[in-house]
Amino acid sequence: MQLLDGKLLSEQIKTELAAEVEQIKAQGGKIPHLAAIIVGENAASQVYVASKIRSCEQVGFKSSLIRCEADITQEDLMDVVQKLNHDPDVDGFIVQLPLPKHIDEEAVTLGILPRKDVDGFHPVNFGRMAQGLPAFLPATPMGILEILRRYKIETSGKHCVVVGRSNIVGTPISILLSRKGYPGDCTVTLTHSRTKDLPGEVRRADIVVAAIGIPEFVKGDWVKEGAVVIDVGINRIPDESKKSGFRIAGDVDFESVAPHCSYITPVPGGVGLMTVAALMLNTLKACKGEIYGA
Amino acid sequence: MQLLDGKLLSEQIKTELAAEVEQIKAQGGKIPHLAAIIVGENAASQVYVASKIRSCEQVGFKSSLIRCEADITQEDLMDVVQKLNHDPDVDGFIVQLPLPKHIDEEAVTLGILPRKDVDGFHPVNFGRMAQGLPAFLPATPMGILEILRRYKIETSGKHCVVVGRSNIVGTPISILLSRKGYPGDCTVTLTHSRTKDLPGEVRRADIVVAAIGIPEFVKGDWVKEGAVVIDVGINRIPDESKKSGFRIAGDVDFESVAPHCSYITPVPGGVGLMTVAALMLNTLKACKGEIYGA
Repeated sequence: MQLLDGKLLSEQIKTELAAEVEQIKAQGGKIPHLAAIIVGENAASQVYVASKIRSCEQVGFKSSLIRCEADITQEDLMDVVQKLNHDPDVDGFIVQLPLPKHIDEEAVTLGILPRKDVDGFHPVNFGRMAQGLPAFLPATPMGILEILRRYKIETSGKHCVVVGRSNIVGTPISILLSRKGYPGDCTVTLTHSRTKDLPGEVRRADIVVAAIGIPEFVKGDWVKEGAVVIDVGINRIPDESKKSGFRIAGDVDFESVAPHCSYITPVPGGVGLMTVAALMLNTLKACKGEIYGA
Repeated sequence: MQLLDGKLLSEQIKTELAAEVEQIKAQGGKIPHLAAIIVGENAASQVYVASKIRSCEQVGFKSSLIRCEADITQEDLMDVVQKLNHDPDVDGFIVQLPLPKHIDEEAVTLGILPRKDVDGFHPVNFGRMAQGLPAFLPATPMGILEILRRYKIETSGKHCVVVGRSNIVGTPISILLSRKGYPGDCTVTLTHSRTKDLPGEVRRADIVVAAIGIPEFVKGDWVKEGAVVIDVGINRIPDESKKSGFRIAGDVDFESVAPHCSYITPVPGGVGLMTVAALMLNTLKACKGEIYGA
């Protein structure tokens, strides 16, 4: 069993990005600039956004953090989005989810210019991805592709079982892995809460992507010998022995699953860090106009 | 074994649409108007477009057919598209595919206003569909959903195997059938040319959707007893015994497959007619502003 080391890979990617930023600087080009909007005080969101901003600093990107009060109106939030849409220095931006209940998340996502949508959540980017056109890929699925690519894991003709059908992970990764090319050309089964005999489906997989949001859901006896297991879950479990009062668990029961795997991502230190790295890669693409032209 | 009668269903839908058009007329509302652009003399395209125009006449829609020479330039074709985008009387329009080789099909599709894209091929509609937002669904997958719905075929928790990953059928129907709701909530496996043991995958299916474009590809011993089989193929096979010189065959070997099925679509008389019916349903939606507002 080998760990798929998201920490190592994300550091590699950041080193590559930092080198590219140096080159851009030397040539007097535009420095990539990522902006993030955060609404309210959700603890997990604070952690994620802080990690994105820190990554920008590490690679030499410009970053902006726009903090909005939890009781901001839809209209005022849309104004913030519009301001970033029109700011020529901002190459890409994200609105950290989840948003407070009174905000229409869909309207916010639709308000972001597709050319600045580095999270890849806008339907234009989602549709282009699904149709195999150049697009900003959603960051988590893109991070998974980077893991497979950088560990040179064979995907063509492999059976991939995706557990969970969310718009941000399960559905897009199932589409991406079934496309032509590498990483891709998998036979993909998308499973979810309505699937009959989920363990039986997972047992058929050469590659398992667990993204159902239930801690330690996938068990050891669900996993075929030699399978590759990608754990997307980031769940907080109350744990009094920790100073924070919680520990982080994935969607995979690592202890029982790992012995059966050829490769497995740890949590933390796996997909989560790659999501941030993918966001950085998208920001560079946005700055260079790689998807929608300069 | 029961036939899923696309002829009967499409007639039902047209009868319903005709009644709605009568009502619109009685209330002095706008009559739905579908336009179709056809480029060149492709024989199959002529047949498809003629059938769409005839269906418009049957239900009382207005229709326009714009014929372009096979050697039309990209620029001139884009002008035709723009004219229809800006024509307030045209609710929706299609550009019949395939286009001649010198035309950039992607640019044409991207040029159609999403609110008039009744074929559902624009990335905005595709992405909205994949994200579960209101969207014009691509006509063939939508026709398949109508078949399942009108025959009250149970889908929740069923294993659906889709054969073929095209942008217009295989990929979107795999997405649609895995979504929450009815018809949907299937466990979906998307298979294709790189799939290992395709017959073995198909054998696991409660619902088979064959959309690979190879005549009589799916054989009787690939199909589980009691499966529902949806045949999307429309292949022309040379046949000297026919006046036309060809016969139409599906992607399913009907003779050997049908005895194993609980339900099966015939070809012709199955999905093809439902594709046209779905296009009519989308045109009415466009006229009423159901997806993007009036």
